[in-house]
Amino acid sequence: MKDVAVVGVGITEFGEKWNSSFREIFLNAGIQALEDAGVKGEDIDEAYIGNMSAGRFIAQEHVSALIADYAGLSEMNVPATRVEAACASGGLALRQGFLSVASGVQDTVVVGGVEKMTDVQSEQSVEILAAASDREWEAFYGATFPGLYALIANRHIHKYGTTRDQIAQVAVKNHYNATMNPKAQFQNKITKEMVKNATKVADPLTLFDSSPITDGAAAVVLVPAEKAHQYTDNPVYITGSGQASDTISIHDRNDITTIESTKAAAQTAYKMANKDQSDIDVAEVHDCFTIAEILAIEDLGFCEKGKGGKMVEEGITELDGKLPINPSGGLKACGHPVGATGIKQAVEITNHLRGEAGERQVEADVGLCHNVGGSGGTATVHILSREEQK
Amino acid sequence: MKDVAVVGVGITEFGEKWNSSFREIFLNAGIQALEDAGVKGEDIDEAYIGNMSAGRFIAQEHVSALIADYAGLSEMNVPATRVEAACASGGLALRQGFLSVASGVQDTVVVGGVEKMTDVQSEQSVEILAAASDREWEAFYGATFPGLYALIANRHIHKYGTTRDQIAQVAVKNHYNATMNPKAQFQNKITKEMVKNATKVADPLTLFDSSPITDGAAAVVLVPAEKAHQYTDNPVYITGSGQASDTISIHDRNDITTIESTKAAAQTAYKMANKDQSDIDVAEVHDCFTIAEILAIEDLGFCEKGKGGKMVEEGITELDGKLPINPSGGLKACGHPVGATGIKQAVEITNHLRGEAGERQVEADVGLCHNVGGSGGTATVHILSREEQK
Repeated sequence: MKDVAVVGVGITEFGEKWNSSFREIFLNAGIQALEDAGVKGEDIDEAYIGNMSAGRFIAQEHVSALIADYAGLSEMNVPATRVEAACASGGLALRQGFLSVASGVQDTVVVGGVEKMTDVQSEQSVEILAAASDREWEAFYGATFPGLYALIANRHIHKYGTTRDQIAQVAVKNHYNATMNPKAQFQNKITKEMVKNATKVADPLTLFDSSPITDGAAAVVLVPAEKAHQYTDNPVYITGSGQASDTISIHDRNDITTIESTKAAAQTAYKMANKDQSDIDVAEVHDCFTIAEILAIEDLGFCEKGKGGKMVEEGITELDGKLPINPSGGLKACGHPVGATGIKQAVEITNHLRGEAGERQVEADVGLCHNVGGSGGTATVHILSREEQK
Repeated sequence: MKDVAVVGVGITEFGEKWNSSFREIFLNAGIQALEDAGVKGEDIDEAYIGNMSAGRFIAQEHVSALIADYAGLSEMNVPATRVEAACASGGLALRQGFLSVASGVQDTVVVGGVEKMTDVQSEQSVEILAAASDREWEAFYGATFPGLYALIANRHIHKYGTTRDQIAQVAVKNHYNATMNPKAQFQNKITKEMVKNATKVADPLTLFDSSPITDGAAAVVLVPAEKAHQYTDNPVYITGSGQASDTISIHDRNDITTIESTKAAAQTAYKMANKDQSDIDVAEVHDCFTIAEILAIEDLGFCEKGKGGKMVEEGITELDGKLPINPSGGLKACGHPVGATGIKQAVEITNHLRGEAGERQVEADVGLCHNVGGSGGTATVHILSREEQK
């Protein structure tokens, strides 16, 4: 397996883009990534697209062909593949693109993620997202994702003494980070009181514990590490990639406060990169709900199981802390266009490793991206580094 | 790139399976494939699943996690990835599985395709399938797939003098083949008169020119060629794999009687396998409508453009002809559970190369599978062989 370099990144503004179509949103990010890399369409060997549910949001399947066509790639008959694992669709696309280049199958691969979620009513989008759970054994009985993550939150509180304030602090931190991210959906500060007193969604979670419904796209261009300097003086390397599954339903797990797919994907990625959790300087993790960020930092090994709330409380995960988590604002404040999120994380980490993250820049040589599908049926972990793996 | 061996195959009965759920249908095929290979769940390194639209047919996305869970693979945290390109979803899954093994990333990969289409009304299924076309520029204006393929048929008739009888003969042949396939949805003979006089769907195409709505699944187990004999005395090798894109809409093409993605995917696959069209002894091609089989045999190079109808008329593509096409009965008579079709083709060709195709057995050393998404926005071509590539 070769090391793989990210030589171009692109990302749209995240938010409610009622005046832009699905294809326009994607192309905006894709063109940015190609221009950033100095790559032309005719140089692209393959495309992977992460998308959860264009079928249900905009009645469009076969989005890989749609995108290849409107990007001009179908003129060269470039193969384009959509991958899907709910909210981890972007992470899957990144892994397939990584494998394609790392294994020597292709040289220049564009990887994108996109979702257009605001063309349906809010209650419809909750129903559409519920398709990431087990329809027959969760959704049919009324379980929605806020409900499932609320069960997890209550169990975490019960088992580990995690406090409501610690959970709320995740949202406060992520909103603060997003004030410095011009692409973020919510660029406003909030307080713990605002989180706790917001409209209850599923006890103990409120509206401000929840990631929003978002339109947006992100894209990266990948090439073999040895060719990176043909494109950029400032390449970033993907040195580890892991993907794993867990039960789709939380009721089939031994412990609903642990997401085994995150742990397994992280172990694969750490091993491939020859790194461990102590080497990570910055991470973008999957905070679809505040409690999910606490699970993530535990399951990725950044602290002991049960100590995630305390780690947040102590400020370790803040922008100026020892291990900044979600400098972009995370899913909570940057926004969560589900298919795009996994790629947005890679764009954000690349920007930090390049020193191009603007006001929210952190000092980092090694970063991590963590993307989860549903309540953890799928997870991906990628490790990005300023240096090639030795 | 290593050669890859198919060491296990499984397929369900195709048809209206109202008493079976999506997950049951898939597991039926998957377990057959694992038993056929003598492989246990704990030996599986990765899974790829082709599925077009479980989201819209049964309100279930994230089917890779669902399947990994119910197959017991999530106990080992096996990564599972759904790929989608409409009716070419199965072909995409086969290619991703092939690439995963051929590149040395994984050793033992299970690849499946599945669709559960009969839980919705017929008119809904036409609408759901229309999501494979360009929603904004085709489907919104009333174009359905029968309509799009009828335009292609009329143009082919006009430009090349293809006759209605030649087109109808495709359905007659495929129904005849299916009488010998116990897994086929329609195991009855039909006549050209029956095809021409059936209910008109979109002039000139009738109901009997059209593939049906089908539930079904198929699966194969892939390992590196050098390990094939650990599993079977009768391995079949995938020696070539190609995928390509074309415009998603037919109105953007120079010539609607040619599917450029088929031509490009075939060239890639032939080159990789070090073969050309003259080496192919049997093929499963994408006959979603009768006219599509005529386009396929032309675009795959089996005859000159415009001569496909004549090739069918002359009986060359019949079971006892020089180049049997769609011995399974094709999409037309075996049935077309869209995400499963690309894998079903590989199962069928493997059975012929192994000499295990029963009554419909043809003599063949090299076979080809051709899978199309929508009206050709995506196509895949795979070449299977009794011998490893020299």
